[in-house]
Amino acid sequence: MLRCCRAGAAIASRCAPGSLRGLHGPAMAKSKFEYVRDFEGDDTVLPNCWIVVRLDGRNFHRFSEQHEFKKPNDDRALQLMTKCAQTVMQELEDISIAYGQSDEYSFVFKKKSRWFKRRASKFMTHVVSQFSSSYVFYWKDYFKDQQLLYPPGFDGRIVLYPSNQNLKDYLSWRQADCHINNLYNTVFWMLVQRGGLTPVQAQERLQGTLAGDKNEILFSEFNINYNNEPLMYRKGTVLIWQKVNEVITKKIKLPKEEEEKEVEVTRTKTKVVPLHCDIIGDQFWEEYPEILAEDS
Amino acid sequence: MLRCCRAGAAIASRCAPGSLRGLHGPAMAKSKFEYVRDFEGDDTVLPNCWIVVRLDGRNFHRFSEQHEFKKPNDDRALQLMTKCAQTVMQELEDISIAYGQSDEYSFVFKKKSRWFKRRASKFMTHVVSQFSSSYVFYWKDYFKDQQLLYPPGFDGRIVLYPSNQNLKDYLSWRQADCHINNLYNTVFWMLVQRGGLTPVQAQERLQGTLAGDKNEILFSEFNINYNNEPLMYRKGTVLIWQKVNEVITKKIKLPKEEEEKEVEVTRTKTKVVPLHCDIIGDQFWEEYPEILAEDS
Amino acid sequence: MLRCCRAGAAIASRCAPGSLRGLHGPAMAKSKFEYVRDFEGDDTVLPNCWIVVRLDGRNFHRFSEQHEFKKPNDDRALQLMTKCAQTVMQELEDISIAYGQSDEYSFVFKKKSRWFKRRASKFMTHVVSQFSSSYVFYWKDYFKDQQLLYPPGFDGRIVLYPSNQNLKDYLSWRQADCHINNLYNTVFWMLVQRGGLTPVQAQERLQGTLAGDKNEILFSEFNINYNNEPLMYRKGTVLIWQKVNEVITKKIKLPKEEEEKEVEVTRTKTKVVPLHCDIIGDQFWEEYPEILAEDS
Amino acid sequence: MLRCCRAGAAIASRCAPGSLRGLHGPAMAKSKFEYVRDFEGDDTVLPNCWIVVRLDGRNFHRFSEQHEFKKPNDDRALQLMTKCAQTVMQELEDISIAYGQSDEYSFVFKKKSRWFKRRASKFMTHVVSQFSSSYVFYWKDYFKDQQLLYPPGFDGRIVLYPSNQNLKDYLSWRQADCHINNLYNTVFWMLVQRGGLTPVQAQERLQGTLAGDKNEILFSEFNINYNNEPLMYRKGTVLIWQKVNEVITKKIKLPKEEEEKEVEVTRTKTKVVPLHCDIIGDQFWEEYPEILAEDS
Repeated sequence: MLRCCRAGAAIASRCAPGSLRGLHGPAMAKSKFEYVRDFEGDDTVLPNCWIVVRLDGRNFHRFSEQHEFKKPNDDRALQLMTKCAQTVMQELEDISIAYGQSDEYSFVFKKKSRWFKRRASKFMTHVVSQFSSSYVFYWKDYFKDQQLLYPPGFDGRIVLYPSNQNLKDYLSWRQADCHINNLYNTVFWMLVQRGGLTPVQAQERLQGTLAGDKNEILFSEFNINYNNEPLMYRKGTVLIWQKVNEVITKKIKLPKEEEEKEVEVTRTKTKVVPLHCDIIGDQFWEEYPEILAEDS
Repeated sequence: MLRCCRAGAAIASRCAPGSLRGLHGPAMAKSKFEYVRDFEGDDTVLPNCWIVVRLDGRNFHRFSEQHEFKKPNDDRALQLMTKCAQTVMQELEDISIAYGQSDEYSFVFKKKSRWFKRRASKFMTHVVSQFSSSYVFYWKDYFKDQQLLYPPGFDGRIVLYPSNQNLKDYLSWRQADCHINNLYNTVFWMLVQRGGLTPVQAQERLQGTLAGDKNEILFSEFNINYNNEPLMYRKGTVLIWQKVNEVITKKIKLPKEEEEKEVEVTRTKTKVVPLHCDIIGDQFWEEYPEILAEDS
Repeated sequence: MLRCCRAGAAIASRCAPGSLRGLHGPAMAKSKFEYVRDFEGDDTVLPNCWIVVRLDGRNFHRFSEQHEFKKPNDDRALQLMTKCAQTVMQELEDISIAYGQSDEYSFVFKKKSRWFKRRASKFMTHVVSQFSSSYVFYWKDYFKDQQLLYPPGFDGRIVLYPSNQNLKDYLSWRQADCHINNLYNTVFWMLVQRGGLTPVQAQERLQGTLAGDKNEILFSEFNINYNNEPLMYRKGTVLIWQKVNEVITKKIKLPKEEEEKEVEVTRTKTKVVPLHCDIIGDQFWEEYPEILAEDS
Repeated sequence: MLRCCRAGAAIASRCAPGSLRGLHGPAMAKSKFEYVRDFEGDDTVLPNCWIVVRLDGRNFHRFSEQHEFKKPNDDRALQLMTKCAQTVMQELEDISIAYGQSDEYSFVFKKKSRWFKRRASKFMTHVVSQFSSSYVFYWKDYFKDQQLLYPPGFDGRIVLYPSNQNLKDYLSWRQADCHINNLYNTVFWMLVQRGGLTPVQAQERLQGTLAGDKNEILFSEFNINYNNEPLMYRKGTVLIWQKVNEVITKKIKLPKEEEEKEVEVTRTKTKVVPLHCDIIGDQFWEEYPEILAEDS
């Protein structure tokens, strides 16, 4: 026998007047409404394909200005991005490689992943959620003198790649994009910061120039060899899992001895490690064959 | 320590030897890879349907224990959720109503919304991202003595509702769920906290009981009338846009006077306002007809 | 000539040598392969929306020439299309209205239809399959002197409409299309057949003309009032379900009489009936309110 | 008898009274409705995957009884199915292999196919439409003494397979299914037709039997070695493209001669050829490597 709330018009309206009890009140109410679950579509993605989730900062042009990011590259911002991506890889399942540059990061889930039954929404939202909360959480570790003014946003999308070649081409596409943008930005900001041009003038100067022209400007006008710029800027950041040996100090009590004794123990752990290297050529994939290995 | 591959292997290999210039190098490379964009599916959702995004805390059972949430309801946690939901409504476009309870929140976008061309991934990821970053950002405003131990995660899903009745039934479903869970939790924690039962014993005691039985336990054993419990616990939180009159003080300089003068000015603003009321019955929808109005 | 591989290679290889029995052979084989079913996606469509399947003739320009269709309208072809559409409505479930013109037909399934769990592929393929086989089957009933030269093809698509207004606008769109095309074709073929223009000249003559100009040409040059053209050409064909009284002759044996006697019996049946009327205005929908009735 | 509404109500009402011209009438009307096109979803399928369309007869149990198909296999019915499948392969684009058994057929479109921009609905509906119209069209060529009583229906579905192994496993799954069903049906109909059992008795007799048991019944009770049954029954039908040499007779006029002369010319054509062989083992795929070749 159900007792009834007074509160909640709808439920009360089902009760006999003056009574505390509504025979079938809220439980029925819930089951009566439960048909709305049928409107949830099934967003399971095709099996045996690489699942890529890429996120991008929302309005990061404005965000980077308000938070005084150094131009063209701010080490703190890049390293915070990477810290968040590492957190995502550690917290979620089945991510075998990630690649980031500027305000974007791509996460690659294993072909055979059965995480959350391969539901697209789960992949997308878990990635952006974990990344976004981490961004605020770890902000102060990287921006010591710069307060975070408001909570930033990231959007995400999911893309499937059926073959290993497709996946490698996807990552190459992002790294080529990094190269093109960074070369442009490097020259642009040189022209503005050291060349004394206004942003509009710098833009006009670069209109229609090819990669070679930009290298030439850097070299002849600013004595900069682009190839000597930091790898993190030119190549972006690759995150992979690696076995790492850790030497830790442990207190143990040896038999027949009274007191504990400190000993050094070497332990092998699997960690997410950042690299700043080319992933367009074959070398990287030959060096780390386990990333694409079908059964990894 | 980072390890690095040979810089720019792939790109360099396309350049003339000894030259700084790869005339078409990386640009060509990029266009060669750009076919991978064709793998992005179109996730545009059907026009003229209500778009609901619901998010849920990930592993919040564990999270709430580690952060010592009060049971069965922690005001700080509920208010932080609502603060985040308000931020989402203010930052994103076209949300006309939101409903939250426990560690979940539902956001309803207008039927006619054209935001991001109605792409499902944009709706889902923007909501969970903004919510997650806000959760960490505003944490300290609500949990003054309790430090946030790690960045939490939320997942999200998107559901379409073609008719107003479907949408109201969806929201009713969530509020009926709130009622059922909160009644259960209220009795459960009473039995544990004041009745001295272990969690397992409390669970066994409640097995098979109906709503009326639970009300009876609360009343006869703990002298609690469930209907007097706070509305926020029993009804959850509804967020809607409301015109609010603000009285602000402004300094103005009147003509023919030397000095500025302070005057009070009444300004009308549209704000996100929390309510804790029944949304199952008709009364709410009659009071706020603009929420469902086709052209709002 | 068929060439053949060794019988049962794969299966035989799993059997014990010299035995007729492969104890678990093929069954195991099948279950080993059955994982491929997981690749079938769920194509269930959103509940509470009108489901429209529209089919179009494939290469019907060529088909109509090869089968000497009369221009601009061939009664036999139009009536055969309608016969096929009637068959589709009678054979499949839950179609409440259909609309056809030229070589296309649209079928509207009820909002609440649960046919085949609302799987899109089932709706699409059943419609085009039944239509296509009927087209060949009933061909000779309409084209008595014209042999069917090859089996024609139709393609199909599925579209959802959440509201009644959306659905009415869809049907209006098709009927407005019928009007525009038929007016154009009527003038075009007059200019060619009676005006002596070549197709290219007729096309040039009509370039840029408005509806009024076309009406004027018909009236002043060919003494044709377009509004007197057959409704089937100008409005297309609407198929709806209607109660029809049938008078049938039945033999019955009355009590106390030796012989059977013929009596006339009136029977009410529900039939698919073709109309050629305007469905853009309100009149049609007011006359047949049951078509859009939620619970029909 | 057709009943009709007032001619052109909606459109006429937009015209000036007494005028033949509705200057912008229907065109405007059409554009006003054209928004309904936005409700058509994009059903483009993922690139670089094998596209399989499988069709099945609708209610073919009943159909086969009404048309007196021989049990367990009717050569006419199987050959008609194959004729229709050949027509589908010849009329549509990019089908590299098909496999059929009983009342089902699977068509495999090339991984790289760009036919109709890879829209799922186009693939599905073109296949079932062409198949269905062909079934009626070619019926009389196979069922000479048996008239077709009504137009049959087929449904279709589309499935994607990312890797060659997945595709081979799909086809193996269908062939294993053919084997299991045919073995069962062969014994079942022997027990009924020659063993004098009723269908229910035959079913009970076979309940729980393994493949070996069924082979044993055939052998010991009916002196039938299942492996000697026709390959078409046991293996189904594989359709592939093959180069075929055709010798044709051509009349040509040689120089310096008065009359035409008949000569024999050998011409190479690509034809759809049926095989009845095992496709589960490697042999078939080694013999026809071009089927899976990436760039075929």
